[in-house]
Amino acid sequence: MQENQMIVLKSRPNPQATVDNFELKRAPIAPLQAGQVLVRHHYLSLDPYMRGRMNEGKSYAAAQALGEVMIGGTVGEVVQSEHAGYAVGDSVVGMGGWQLYSVVNGDTPGALHKVDVQHVPISAYLGAVGMPGVTAWWGLVRIIEPKAGETVVVSAAAGAVGSALGALAKARGCRVVGIAGGAAKCAYVEKELGFDACVDYKAHRDVDALSRALKAACPNGIDGYFENVGGVVTDAVMRRMNAFGRIAVCGMISRYDGAAVVMADPSLILINRLKVQGFIVSEHMQDWPAALRELAGLYISGKLRPRETIAEGLAAAPRAFLGLLKGENLGKQLVRL
Amino acid sequence: MQENQMIVLKSRPNPQATVDNFELKRAPIAPLQAGQVLVRHHYLSLDPYMRGRMNEGKSYAAAQALGEVMIGGTVGEVVQSEHAGYAVGDSVVGMGGWQLYSVVNGDTPGALHKVDVQHVPISAYLGAVGMPGVTAWWGLVRIIEPKAGETVVVSAAAGAVGSALGALAKARGCRVVGIAGGAAKCAYVEKELGFDACVDYKAHRDVDALSRALKAACPNGIDGYFENVGGVVTDAVMRRMNAFGRIAVCGMISRYDGAAVVMADPSLILINRLKVQGFIVSEHMQDWPAALRELAGLYISGKLRPRETIAEGLAAAPRAFLGLLKGENLGKQLVRL
Repeated sequence: MQENQMIVLKSRPNPQATVDNFELKRAPIAPLQAGQVLVRHHYLSLDPYMRGRMNEGKSYAAAQALGEVMIGGTVGEVVQSEHAGYAVGDSVVGMGGWQLYSVVNGDTPGALHKVDVQHVPISAYLGAVGMPGVTAWWGLVRIIEPKAGETVVVSAAAGAVGSALGALAKARGCRVVGIAGGAAKCAYVEKELGFDACVDYKAHRDVDALSRALKAACPNGIDGYFENVGGVVTDAVMRRMNAFGRIAVCGMISRYDGAAVVMADPSLILINRLKVQGFIVSEHMQDWPAALRELAGLYISGKLRPRETIAEGLAAAPRAFLGLLKGENLGKQLVRL
Repeated sequence: MQENQMIVLKSRPNPQATVDNFELKRAPIAPLQAGQVLVRHHYLSLDPYMRGRMNEGKSYAAAQALGEVMIGGTVGEVVQSEHAGYAVGDSVVGMGGWQLYSVVNGDTPGALHKVDVQHVPISAYLGAVGMPGVTAWWGLVRIIEPKAGETVVVSAAAGAVGSALGALAKARGCRVVGIAGGAAKCAYVEKELGFDACVDYKAHRDVDALSRALKAACPNGIDGYFENVGGVVTDAVMRRMNAFGRIAVCGMISRYDGAAVVMADPSLILINRLKVQGFIVSEHMQDWPAALRELAGLYISGKLRPRETIAEGLAAAPRAFLGLLKGENLGKQLVRL
């Protein structure tokens, strides 16, 4: 029978995540039982939230257990089925983890979704038309609630969530300004993703300089901010928020390794009557169908076609993941399995 | 004719507010013109927001101009009227400022409200049944939106806003926990105001100790927090917030003098999916009638009868105001004029 390969969490970051926290293992695949489906993964999604799971202690989700396969979204193909709802050859998206194969109970609600790969390539279901896209949709539509003509800013704009946020906000008539690291990423955000402007935070290292650059890019101030990073970037954005601005807190990547990163001036929340709200997209499944419909439409019409950065082979996943945390990828970070 | 006395802002805090920032002046009162009303103030309200107005630069409201009468809420009596809607002897509440008399245009919307002093003493219209009470109502009802059985915490619990927050949250079936400075204030909050518990922040000087004390007082965690102070108190509360908790940011008194006070760990906003929202009650006038009705009912039924700290005479106002900023008052801080 087929042999599976998987990457498990061997040790916890202390405090920085390194390749030594991961271990590649092999194991035979047991024969399927009634109701089960065997999926061969084509792509694994790498996402910042995984870093939070590697830590012990209080987070928004249970910590990843040591010795178990790393959690992760996957797309692939049914290669064997003991469930009437799935046939060999079906394209499916699921949470298969960092491994080549997964055995899924076809009756578990939400464990596996069949997807159309005629109009949308399968890898997009891990990005623009998947969890990152829905994440952008939820923060924008449910927290920022933008009006046409307002200015919306997103950090990590060149990433999977950022690119979707840009297309969704443009579709609502907003001025969309990205924040990204480096001239190449900013050029990509402005020229390929269609943002109105992009601010290079690496060219503006302190909060004063970054705040000035944001003022130039956002002449009418900032009404909505989609927060992916935290730290100095947030402090600079907060200085430019308009009265009654909304901040959707999706990630604080700068927090994952080591000590907490402070918010420099929380009194701006009062002074500008801001709403700052954290969310986790998996807690709002009722909104996924509407979000995915809109995202698929944007993809098919060509308005949302972000690039992908693809690492080759399961063994490359840890290094690609650490690169993602450092911002080395452009667009959606995937691993081809 | 009568002579008026007033206190003007002579200079700006640098960075601390002192009595030298204020100056007492005298001036004759000009004869009334058609449509005007002359009010003799009985009480002046002292409130933390006034400290923000003393600073120059971006705040949520225009800075107090140098040389002009300090802004402030007042209650008093009409002593002369050239307006058909007001008669000599009417009890009125308004924004008369730090002075003995004010001349008000009776047609200006919202400038003057006649109040019933048969069931509620006139001074209460500056506290429980006035702006501080409505402030508590708005943050609780519109941002915290508490459900029966939830735990609501308020800082500066012994103050005018805190006492109203307690009564309003108790009326909604919540567990209400105060934070106040010193054993006397905490005893007042628990025994006279009817809170379920009160934590003395002066007895728990660092964030770890204060967080432990809050855990003991809030065994089911914190669902809603009404923020009056900022700094270490906020950091300690944030560690105890439950998932989907709400924080209404009404004041950050620790911010007014000098440098910004940081928020130690904003990633808790994401981890606990918190909503943190700032507000200013004067921007929500449409809610005042409903709020004032509920507050008057609580007052008349005896469920909201906070103490007042009364300074005697206009000249005592600056020192009483600085004491308020240091937390020296118990309950509503007034000046008898």
